[in-house]
Amino acid sequence: MNPAATPLRLSTAQTDFEARFAARLHWSSETDHAIEQRVADILADVQRRGDAAVLEYTARFDGLQAASVAELELTQADFKAAFDALPAAQREALQAAAARVRRYHEAQKKANGEGWSYRDEDGTLLGQKVTPLDRVGIYVPGGKAAYPSSLIMNAVPAHVAGVPEIVMVVPTPVRGSVATGGSGAATAARGERNELVLAAAHVAGVTRAFTIGGAQAVAALAYGTATVPKVDKITGPGNAYVASAKKRVFGTVGIDMIAGPSEILVLADGSTPAEWVAMDLFSQAEHDELAQSILLCPDAAYIAAVQAAIDRLLPTMPRAAIIAKSLNDRGALIHTRSMEEACAISNRIAPEHLEVSSAEPHRWEPLLRHAGAIFLGAYTSESLGDYCAGPNHVLPTSGTARFSSPLGVYDFQKRSSLIEVSAAGAQSLGTVAAELAYGEGLQAHARAAELRLNDVPPMRGAR
Amino acid sequence: MNPAATPLRLSTAQTDFEARFAARLHWSSETDHAIEQRVADILADVQRRGDAAVLEYTARFDGLQAASVAELELTQADFKAAFDALPAAQREALQAAAARVRRYHEAQKKANGEGWSYRDEDGTLLGQKVTPLDRVGIYVPGGKAAYPSSLIMNAVPAHVAGVPEIVMVVPTPVRGSVATGGSGAATAARGERNELVLAAAHVAGVTRAFTIGGAQAVAALAYGTATVPKVDKITGPGNAYVASAKKRVFGTVGIDMIAGPSEILVLADGSTPAEWVAMDLFSQAEHDELAQSILLCPDAAYIAAVQAAIDRLLPTMPRAAIIAKSLNDRGALIHTRSMEEACAISNRIAPEHLEVSSAEPHRWEPLLRHAGAIFLGAYTSESLGDYCAGPNHVLPTSGTARFSSPLGVYDFQKRSSLIEVSAAGAQSLGTVAAELAYGEGLQAHARAAELRLNDVPPMRGAR
Repeated sequence: MNPAATPLRLSTAQTDFEARFAARLHWSSETDHAIEQRVADILADVQRRGDAAVLEYTARFDGLQAASVAELELTQADFKAAFDALPAAQREALQAAAARVRRYHEAQKKANGEGWSYRDEDGTLLGQKVTPLDRVGIYVPGGKAAYPSSLIMNAVPAHVAGVPEIVMVVPTPVRGSVATGGSGAATAARGERNELVLAAAHVAGVTRAFTIGGAQAVAALAYGTATVPKVDKITGPGNAYVASAKKRVFGTVGIDMIAGPSEILVLADGSTPAEWVAMDLFSQAEHDELAQSILLCPDAAYIAAVQAAIDRLLPTMPRAAIIAKSLNDRGALIHTRSMEEACAISNRIAPEHLEVSSAEPHRWEPLLRHAGAIFLGAYTSESLGDYCAGPNHVLPTSGTARFSSPLGVYDFQKRSSLIEVSAAGAQSLGTVAAELAYGEGLQAHARAAELRLNDVPPMRGAR
Repeated sequence: MNPAATPLRLSTAQTDFEARFAARLHWSSETDHAIEQRVADILADVQRRGDAAVLEYTARFDGLQAASVAELELTQADFKAAFDALPAAQREALQAAAARVRRYHEAQKKANGEGWSYRDEDGTLLGQKVTPLDRVGIYVPGGKAAYPSSLIMNAVPAHVAGVPEIVMVVPTPVRGSVATGGSGAATAARGERNELVLAAAHVAGVTRAFTIGGAQAVAALAYGTATVPKVDKITGPGNAYVASAKKRVFGTVGIDMIAGPSEILVLADGSTPAEWVAMDLFSQAEHDELAQSILLCPDAAYIAAVQAAIDRLLPTMPRAAIIAKSLNDRGALIHTRSMEEACAISNRIAPEHLEVSSAEPHRWEPLLRHAGAIFLGAYTSESLGDYCAGPNHVLPTSGTARFSSPLGVYDFQKRSSLIEVSAAGAQSLGTVAAELAYGEGLQAHARAAELRLNDVPPMRGAR
């Protein structure tokens, strides 16, 4: 029997709309306490025992035995061989996607990622310099969520930023082994590699790579081992163990945002073919059962047309079961009073992906304050952005677009303030600084400013 | 007896230099497990019980009793009264500092904080829009580390970014009560307010403020209560409880970096008066006993002159005991082979504050890759930057300048990608996206792209 997908139907005119909508949106990001504790133990162990601990956990969790971590390193030749073995169409698609992503991030760097300075009238120089990170680590999940596009989206901005060393970790579990314990019989078995990921590493310019994963890989990157170099920042998606490990090493290294389930919100005015919108909702739902697809539309007939398209198209989809579960459990088709109201609701959700499927997208865009990425117009399917339009597909999820941004060149750069106070500037600034420093009871701060004055006053409160 | 301050003397020519220097730099950021657990409990309790929990913890930890959280709210009139009551010199200094900090951050916003876009040949639009956060929370410590300058440095960039609502929390413990338990006899007592902080709130434009602190204040801001509004991001320094709470709510809200002890590194070529450099080292050391002051210099005679200046000046300092303890335990005067070597060592440390106390600072600046703020030339004392030069004094500590940046306008903004694919663009992009999506086994992604093609191909792998 084919599964059916019937997303929750709501209308903002319903008196219980708020409560029902809130219930549908609810998702808890609480980390399991047991996972937290295991991750803390793994991190501490890798920090203490380095390579030996990494090898043990890789054998236990991935069923992958090796005599040394060096044996788990992939080479540039591995990347190139994987790339060369691909069908021409895939090779060209990978290169085309990487080129467009590179161009977009180069424009981003030029617009927002360069240093600046100005001089005061008295010659004092103020500004910021921008420098790339020295070395970054990219986590690439193994198994069902192994996405070469994700590697491109992480590695290319790092490259554009000027990061000289990009270290990838990607688990290659031995088939049949599971995360709760490796098979002792797996000795010398080769882990399962994703050739598209290796090919993407060739295209995206990964410097080094290790076939390790989980909290142990995060620990190796954060603390460094004899074999795995310590990085300055770790980006990339992963399971609950990886997310917990990244959160825990935050501060020792930088991390990107911790991602929740993926979401799409479609604002539709009814002008886009209903099948296109239905397929856009599917494209989010097919990720996993927790993914969330929501349609907001002021046209009830159009909502019915989208539901009909869902019914028609779902049976053709290879991932129909996942799509149906996601749409049934977390999806919603919401009838709004107006497009303006739809925009206001969207701002409350702060969706990861926001499609403005409208004949006049630029009318609504200025009303949209919080979103990871905004897809304007009927032709802009989210999937074009996921792979090759140019912008990054690593986006803030679960409402975190209220305070965070797409992954970008800026995530692989950092800034240093530049200050050069002239002799003249030190006279005016010194008086202000000293006044405030004495007020805070920090006399050495005050005195350091006063010593630079042409007429050094007596120290206040000297012993 | 006056305390003596004798920072560790090292030379890079010593065979055991690396080990001795590493030992001096060592500082553990490990959070105490007991603190972590208490903080987790407080956060969960405030999330569950809201205002009632905030009131209980405020009574218990700050000795401050109130019938409602509303009673703990400060008003704009409180800020203005505090400002008006200050001596004119302090009022003017606060205003001058805020004006300079505002000017710098306006330049920063103009240089790096605005949106951009471009169009492909086929009319496809790509870019980013930049929007301010809706509401931010600023934590201001009470007690000995209550710094009005810190409030200015947090609130002004938020203002410049365009954040409409800035909520301050500042504990006002009742004198005699301590963090491990409030005094039951303190009922109706008024907590100890820092009038300079309230005056700074007036100057910096704080929207609302509550006299609460600790993990309970962080929880109130992160989750919201009936009285305290939920914010999108929390910035500002605090003690171990506050730091642990911020780290734990990261993801629910944004946070700034978790700060470690403050540090200064001075690269000196011997051309700056030795007393100026000695006082700059003091200005860091006076913060607290864990603060770190390090001098790197290729001129042994100059190092001796700085030590002599330390000996001469220390007895005059009101905070001599803290300065001496900090310099003795954590300070270092290091003789290097050259200024180039000093720059290389500085890059390894990635100091929060880096003074290039040299007659030719622009010769060395290009060699310096990692630092929170770089102070160029003899007149640029760190303290001028701390208060009023313009750049932010909230800077990455403990080597985190390797991957993070000074607090800035960008911390109070977020970006949304903009994508508008033209009908023509959908043809070329759709083919690439579909190829990669099929490769990843995400057929709905592929199909969403293919449906936009003028000639829709048959679906691969349809059921």
